[in-house]
Amino acid sequence: MEINIIDIAKNAKNAFLKTMDLKSEIKNQALENIAKKLTLREEKIFEANEKDLNNAEKLLSEGKINKAVFDRLKFDKTKMKSLIQGLYDLIKLDDPVNKILFERELDEDLILKKISTPIGVIGVIFEARPDCLIQIASLIIKSGNCAILKGGFEAMNTNKAFFEVLNEALNEIDGFPKNVINLVFSREDIQKILDLDEYISLIIPRGSNKLVKFIKENTKIPVLGHASGICHIFIDESADLDHTKEIVIDAKTQYPSACNAVETILIHKNYPHIDELKKALIETGIKIIEKPSSYSVEYGDKILSLKIVNSLDGAIEHINKYGSGHTDSILSNNNKNIEKFMNLVDSSSVFSNCSTRFSDGFRYGFGAEVGISTNKTHARGPVGLCGLTIYKYKLYGKNQTVKPYATGEKKFSHKDISV
Amino acid sequence: MEINIIDIAKNAKNAFLKTMDLKSEIKNQALENIAKKLTLREEKIFEANEKDLNNAEKLLSEGKINKAVFDRLKFDKTKMKSLIQGLYDLIKLDDPVNKILFERELDEDLILKKISTPIGVIGVIFEARPDCLIQIASLIIKSGNCAILKGGFEAMNTNKAFFEVLNEALNEIDGFPKNVINLVFSREDIQKILDLDEYISLIIPRGSNKLVKFIKENTKIPVLGHASGICHIFIDESADLDHTKEIVIDAKTQYPSACNAVETILIHKNYPHIDELKKALIETGIKIIEKPSSYSVEYGDKILSLKIVNSLDGAIEHINKYGSGHTDSILSNNNKNIEKFMNLVDSSSVFSNCSTRFSDGFRYGFGAEVGISTNKTHARGPVGLCGLTIYKYKLYGKNQTVKPYATGEKKFSHKDISV
Repeated sequence: MEINIIDIAKNAKNAFLKTMDLKSEIKNQALENIAKKLTLREEKIFEANEKDLNNAEKLLSEGKINKAVFDRLKFDKTKMKSLIQGLYDLIKLDDPVNKILFERELDEDLILKKISTPIGVIGVIFEARPDCLIQIASLIIKSGNCAILKGGFEAMNTNKAFFEVLNEALNEIDGFPKNVINLVFSREDIQKILDLDEYISLIIPRGSNKLVKFIKENTKIPVLGHASGICHIFIDESADLDHTKEIVIDAKTQYPSACNAVETILIHKNYPHIDELKKALIETGIKIIEKPSSYSVEYGDKILSLKIVNSLDGAIEHINKYGSGHTDSILSNNNKNIEKFMNLVDSSSVFSNCSTRFSDGFRYGFGAEVGISTNKTHARGPVGLCGLTIYKYKLYGKNQTVKPYATGEKKFSHKDISV
Repeated sequence: MEINIIDIAKNAKNAFLKTMDLKSEIKNQALENIAKKLTLREEKIFEANEKDLNNAEKLLSEGKINKAVFDRLKFDKTKMKSLIQGLYDLIKLDDPVNKILFERELDEDLILKKISTPIGVIGVIFEARPDCLIQIASLIIKSGNCAILKGGFEAMNTNKAFFEVLNEALNEIDGFPKNVINLVFSREDIQKILDLDEYISLIIPRGSNKLVKFIKENTKIPVLGHASGICHIFIDESADLDHTKEIVIDAKTQYPSACNAVETILIHKNYPHIDELKKALIETGIKIIEKPSSYSVEYGDKILSLKIVNSLDGAIEHINKYGSGHTDSILSNNNKNIEKFMNLVDSSSVFSNCSTRFSDGFRYGFGAEVGISTNKTHARGPVGLCGLTIYKYKLYGKNQTVKPYATGEKKFSHKDISV
């Protein structure tokens, strides 16, 4: 008998009342046991993945899924190794919860502390990549949150196998609560999750732009993610040719389907090497499109939109209009222009003289990446573990009432205490 | 001819591309000039307010508005004085924008900075209190954001007068952009604002619980606020009688309609002074209700729900079930119980041995208060100016590409630079 999703959500919310105060050691023990069980049960997981791949092959031949989905579905020894390494890396990271963010004396014996806390129940909706289940579950565990996960139907067997291993590992840890990580399967569950704003505090989509867009448009719950990655490089008149070539080629071709790959280059009209640059890009196999209709397209391929702009202001205006607020870079030797670009381009990451591909939680040194957000609230840009936290205020008193402060009999001292 | 709300939103978004990098001096000059103009034009404002009061008197007698709305409408010399003082206090506060939140060397000559930035266009929907317009506009200006304000129709004349004074003041400041603060009037504009997620990044409601609830239920834009304030005091078995009386009376009667006033007291069954406490509360004119149906009611009056609980766990469970995540306090002499309560009650402010009424931005020392949030993302609890900011990542390079880091030829150093 399948359990109702509202009951799952209620159970997860109850579990949160235990995970929010869970000791770091218990959380790390859980992560370590997951790593151990994955090694122990890897044959079971590979077998399940084999089933999914066989089913997917049929779907692929019937045109029901595309090649990219099929490719992401495969889970092999190399992926297992990096998944397990990821767990050990995560164990080493600081617990993001229960950090004192500030401490202030409001008055004698009236001490205010701002403390980081987990958020609550997080809804995670992901597509074909089955290793996503363990990755996201481990981030949820480390940050003291709970989750309802909805995996792609193509990866159902692998997901089930991962989920069994996960549960086996978590059940063995003394003091680790039940119902922290929950898995649902059916397609209808997506909309149900999106409607559960009473129980779910945050939605994390991991998948195609189409999925993210659908989710953002169909829920009142805050969504952490980005629906598209239209990244720009602006080539100022002072940029040299060699580095410009190198950086544009890296940003476009090193991994063309990444969200931080460049989609459009804007070239200052007085840049002296326009033709050489175009020639060099075309020689590397990049297709260049010079049509306004391509300004909003994320090709995810070796295709580049190109526009000649009259000025730095024109470049900034273009990016703020057509960009997705993800990552934009200026190549210039003029520091004033660099600073203006970086201040006025309203994107989560603004770069100077380097490839847009650096926009990534691991490269930023966060140790783990939850995703990249183009939101204007909560978390923006590459999001590390602390994007899965919020804070609470703790006020420690000694029988104070508000009245004497309201009448002026007593005054607040408001002295910050260094932590 | 009235301007279309989408055009207003577009203009505001364009204005944001200027305010996001506005110098602190210009913002402070603008605030100072608003303060000066308010003094200069106070008669005009009082006259407009007189008109609103006359209209409201009619509405009151016809039962179309209630007494509370009528009372909040009045804007007099005392309120003017405190409004102007608020502006001068705000000028003195640190600019919340352009702060370096961290700085990290990713590798030689590849420096990452996390910088605070404003959010964008903020939609503010408020009700009868007309001074709200200047208060919120000044917070928006100080934080480098832009706003579309929608005031209550009862205060329309006062709002128009304030808005004129505001515009007069802002127009006189060299370099202060146009269209930063925008005012709309009609009731239909509320839903239009809530639908403008393409342009508006945050909604701040200032008004009744009903208004906030309506807004939260009718928009996909993040809403900063709280729909209700069901605050609790748990009286542990070790609490003494005298301080308990004082604190409960303060929390209930010092300002009963405040959102941080206590609504329910939970008393440990072994607390030795249950009857004396009840008696004392009743003698102060507090009405006590001991019915489960009142657990979710915010009376905003001298009415208190009371429940005897079997244990600390029972109290925590009750609060997490019936509370609104606003502010909850434990009165106890047992430090272990205090810590357990403060860790496991999932509210934005958790107190020990003091009145719930301390939950307030000014009392916390934030200098200005945007509102109190019960959200689990972005900003929680009393929100100061920094709740109107987010951040961006700036990466300063020297022609680096990602490729050598991907192949392992180069390694990231990830050295934090102290700021």
